[in-house]
Amino acid sequence: MTDLGRLSLNIATTKKLNLAEAVDGAARAGLPAVGLWRDRVHEVGLDGAAKLVRDAGLRVSTLCRGGFLTAADPAGIEAAMEDNRAALDEAAALGTDSLVMVVGGLPEGDVDLAAARRRVADRIADLVPHARDRGVRLVLEPLHPMYAADRAVISTLEQALDLAAPYPADEVAVVVDTFHVFWDPALPRAVERAGREGRIASYQVCDFNLPIAADALLSRGMMGDGVIDFAPITRMVTQAGYTGDIEVEIFNAELWDTPAESVLQTTIDRYRTLILPHLH
Amino acid sequence: MTDLGRLSLNIATTKKLNLAEAVDGAARAGLPAVGLWRDRVHEVGLDGAAKLVRDAGLRVSTLCRGGFLTAADPAGIEAAMEDNRAALDEAAALGTDSLVMVVGGLPEGDVDLAAARRRVADRIADLVPHARDRGVRLVLEPLHPMYAADRAVISTLEQALDLAAPYPADEVAVVVDTFHVFWDPALPRAVERAGREGRIASYQVCDFNLPIAADALLSRGMMGDGVIDFAPITRMVTQAGYTGDIEVEIFNAELWDTPAESVLQTTIDRYRTLILPHLH
Repeated sequence: MTDLGRLSLNIATTKKLNLAEAVDGAARAGLPAVGLWRDRVHEVGLDGAAKLVRDAGLRVSTLCRGGFLTAADPAGIEAAMEDNRAALDEAAALGTDSLVMVVGGLPEGDVDLAAARRRVADRIADLVPHARDRGVRLVLEPLHPMYAADRAVISTLEQALDLAAPYPADEVAVVVDTFHVFWDPALPRAVERAGREGRIASYQVCDFNLPIAADALLSRGMMGDGVIDFAPITRMVTQAGYTGDIEVEIFNAELWDTPAESVLQTTIDRYRTLILPHLH
Repeated sequence: MTDLGRLSLNIATTKKLNLAEAVDGAARAGLPAVGLWRDRVHEVGLDGAAKLVRDAGLRVSTLCRGGFLTAADPAGIEAAMEDNRAALDEAAALGTDSLVMVVGGLPEGDVDLAAARRRVADRIADLVPHARDRGVRLVLEPLHPMYAADRAVISTLEQALDLAAPYPADEVAVVVDTFHVFWDPALPRAVERAGREGRIASYQVCDFNLPIAADALLSRGMMGDGVIDFAPITRMVTQAGYTGDIEVEIFNAELWDTPAESVLQTTIDRYRTLILPHLH
């Protein structure tokens, strides 16, 4: 195993590549794993996607993503359930045990955040049996609080752990994404708890760029380009016992316009200087 | 006392008015108080500002603001101390016991958030004696986590309370600003604690507008225009025992371009429908 043995390319980082190109790029760069997105999987079909990854000798670290569980009307709830059951099936077929869940924001015109959060808890309860059947964990992703209203009503790692608490760790887990949690003064406590409970399913790294991009979703940056100190967070996750893949997942318009080979090389360089030294 | 007896105009809401105009506007609208900014006070001088407010029969709910305490170099630290001592003197002269503290972000090029937070704790310790002498509270403001790196390294109410904990409640307190805290799943617990400790010095209301403005500082909106549910937060603050002024503080380019009289009338209307019913 090279020193890249835990580095996974989340293919959102190379958004302009199709699945075959992204898998090929990751393999050529010496990475052992990819994090997949469902839209790219659907383009080639589930069996074709599984074969592409397998033939390249890679593993799938996570599937992105399930979620969007906050609908309040019966039709919206049923649609979300159906979509998430399909996502769980796809994760199993792709050979990953981790479905990343971005749980959704407030329904249009609604401001009742507490009720939306209760509905997320209800939908998790509804989905757990299917997740258990498929051997796939629902991996709850706390998103940065600036997305609390429109993207994900889970805003802190502690809150994600509270939502996971009723279930075994192999059914509901969490992802620690530096962009979303770096600001949290309670992070050391929450990561320690996540490790103790065996619930860290994924560690995702990317930087937080300032100023916030016009499309706030695209403020994610290459490690080292923004304001995040990766050393203490990486040490927390390591000390919490996490030994799995480390996914680089960057939504950034400028990086998407950069040749993928160059992005992958920078990713590897920054991983080596900013992340790797803190994995022990 | 009318039903507006607790409503204060933070003069940042009517940014294009000078101090005399803002005070006059608030008084004509029937408001009993104003929240002042130091730049507007300096324009007319401290004695002149105090006289303007007094002559209009108003009180000063808070002075904005002290803070910017994260400098790491001796000159930066001394400059911050000097400025904050002056701000405390000004608050006392203006007759308010509340100096709102926006504590500052990371120094340029620095990513060590934990160290910046420790320096804030150190500077608070340095400032408390002068605050005590002046009879003015250092009112710590947790800012929305999207400003953690560049504006205020205090990101949650719980963190503000932890920083205040070593001091008596009449020396270090906190402000609850809906924009900054509405997303926080731990808010009920933190507001209850703030009330129990007697540390709620100010309740500031404004909405969180989406999409986030190009200048993220200007995403604040008129109550009812954004995604915040004011009922539960107002009830929390009320149940925590807060009976003081409620400041409307909105930075919003569109509102700044609207005639102030109209903004004040909308402020009063929205206060009556969205805040007032939950103050009991």
